[in-house]
Amino acid sequence: MTLRILATGGTFDKHYDELNGKLGFGDSHVPALLARCRLTVPVALEQLPLMDSLDMVDADRARILAACQAASERAIVIIHGTDTMPQTAAVLGPAKLGQTIVLTGAMIPYEIANSDALFNLGFACGVAQTLAPGVYVAMNGQIFAWDNVQKNRAAGVFQPL
Amino acid sequence: MTLRILATGGTFDKHYDELNGKLGFGDSHVPALLARCRLTVPVALEQLPLMDSLDMVDADRARILAACQAASERAIVIIHGTDTMPQTAAVLGPAKLGQTIVLTGAMIPYEIANSDALFNLGFACGVAQTLAPGVYVAMNGQIFAWDNVQKNRAAGVFQPL
Amino acid sequence: MTLRILATGGTFDKHYDELNGKLGFGDSHVPALLARCRLTVPVALEQLPLMDSLDMVDADRARILAACQAASERAIVIIHGTDTMPQTAAVLGPAKLGQTIVLTGAMIPYEIANSDALFNLGFACGVAQTLAPGVYVAMNGQIFAWDNVQKNRAAGVFQPL
Amino acid sequence: MTLRILATGGTFDKHYDELNGKLGFGDSHVPALLARCRLTVPVALEQLPLMDSLDMVDADRARILAACQAASERAIVIIHGTDTMPQTAAVLGPAKLGQTIVLTGAMIPYEIANSDALFNLGFACGVAQTLAPGVYVAMNGQIFAWDNVQKNRAAGVFQPL
Repeated sequence: MTLRILATGGTFDKHYDELNGKLGFGDSHVPALLARCRLTVPVALEQLPLMDSLDMVDADRARILAACQAASERAIVIIHGTDTMPQTAAVLGPAKLGQTIVLTGAMIPYEIANSDALFNLGFACGVAQTLAPGVYVAMNGQIFAWDNVQKNRAAGVFQPL
Repeated sequence: MTLRILATGGTFDKHYDELNGKLGFGDSHVPALLARCRLTVPVALEQLPLMDSLDMVDADRARILAACQAASERAIVIIHGTDTMPQTAAVLGPAKLGQTIVLTGAMIPYEIANSDALFNLGFACGVAQTLAPGVYVAMNGQIFAWDNVQKNRAAGVFQPL
Repeated sequence: MTLRILATGGTFDKHYDELNGKLGFGDSHVPALLARCRLTVPVALEQLPLMDSLDMVDADRARILAACQAASERAIVIIHGTDTMPQTAAVLGPAKLGQTIVLTGAMIPYEIANSDALFNLGFACGVAQTLAPGVYVAMNGQIFAWDNVQKNRAAGVFQPL
Repeated sequence: MTLRILATGGTFDKHYDELNGKLGFGDSHVPALLARCRLTVPVALEQLPLMDSLDMVDADRARILAACQAASERAIVIIHGTDTMPQTAAVLGPAKLGQTIVLTGAMIPYEIANSDALFNLGFACGVAQTLAPGVYVAMNGQIFAWDNVQKNRAAGVFQPL
């Protein structure tokens, strides 16, 4: 089993810029994070443009789809912003790629205290190796089918439709 | 799906005692850690005596087995010391409990920088919901059958026999 | 020696709001931070409205001045945003209050990885006990007189005029 | 003002060895920590053998004294284990070197959650620049003269004799 991890940014990977005082994107935290996790499972890390998922347009989702199609691995984890995660899942799901594709992210950036990023990535890396082919969202310790998930913005959690 | 988490200590849950300068066990970090992970999956947390797994004797493993037998959940994650994780798995495996039981732990305590604890717990919570009934060790982003796993102490990683 | 600490917000005390994805102000981190520092010097902590120092108006600086005037302690540390720290210092300096007043802050919020907040607070708490009465800015391991300090925004450091 | 920092180990700089599960000494954390603190004051960092101060013998304290004597800086911070910090101070004090020498340390290692290391180092770096020549212990937000300080081991704090 080899795992492909696609980093696309999102809250998970946001970085505090001390000069302008804003959260944005710099170097991805994912390489350091993977070293920390002491994985021995082979991982192919692919970094797409890091962005807030609210800024994603069709071309961005098409690029994610293309990256999945180009991947030889059967298990893919996509690190993605939470706000439009279901939309990207809805682009990938109907493509029926024959891979197990799991989208995850974080409510609090990896570099901020009390982040859920590491747990979520571990959760996603686990279920990507064990679920049947298909497209899933993995958040809050739960697995959602791509066509039955929404973000409850008021509560800050994912839930079925 | 409800998840039972059994906390038994191990490196994962060690605590630095500032008065004696040693790592030992105080209050478990697991309740705070679960809050941090923003789980919506129902979790039943059960704390057994927290100990270094090198100090475990038969009675300790029997208590873990009994806790699994008493659990109504089909998915159980056991937070356990790494040094004798395979031995405990070898007690649980032959019991054929019909549940999915996943042992995990950490090489670096949760409260120490660069810990793998959160990732490993996320990984275990994921595969406990998706694997067939049986007993597994989940470490280093890999899933091992209970009867085909060992800790490579020199490298600090788990591997098949 | 008793120390008064005035918390006014600034980058130091910013908090990530996971529901709107923005850095703002919630409960101050300062009480938890002081417990962490294991101080035995008596500390009187006073929380003023927490704000970004770019949002401060004359009334806000007047309130800080009034808090210093009302304080019986001879040593005062003010946790303040970096962007207008010299301006507030310039309100306090000419008032010649007879106390040692030290303004400090952080370039990275306390709750974000790699923050300078704890070091800066320690630095300020030290020099507030040892400097002659007057108003100072303490940042970057340096002490600046209130009338000879500016923030170099491009470099993200403080320097003399 | 240039600051010399002597790193001698102690709890402050202990490192968790994931292979043997013990706290010991590896590479010093101090270089990374100084980068984090965004100092613009010139700092000369000198690393002596890192050790638990309970293991220090006369030769170790003589080496620290020699390092102070060899230093051209007027302000010196010594990062030291807490258990015998007063003993080392008692070697340095009578030497009347004409420098301001401040010993500090930590009750919880820098790399462990809730550490006081950063605060204490900031505190020491501040008072080393402002106190009259002499030898001091700076812990718990307080400054102690070298000949009037002891560690209260039961409480985990420093206090006068």
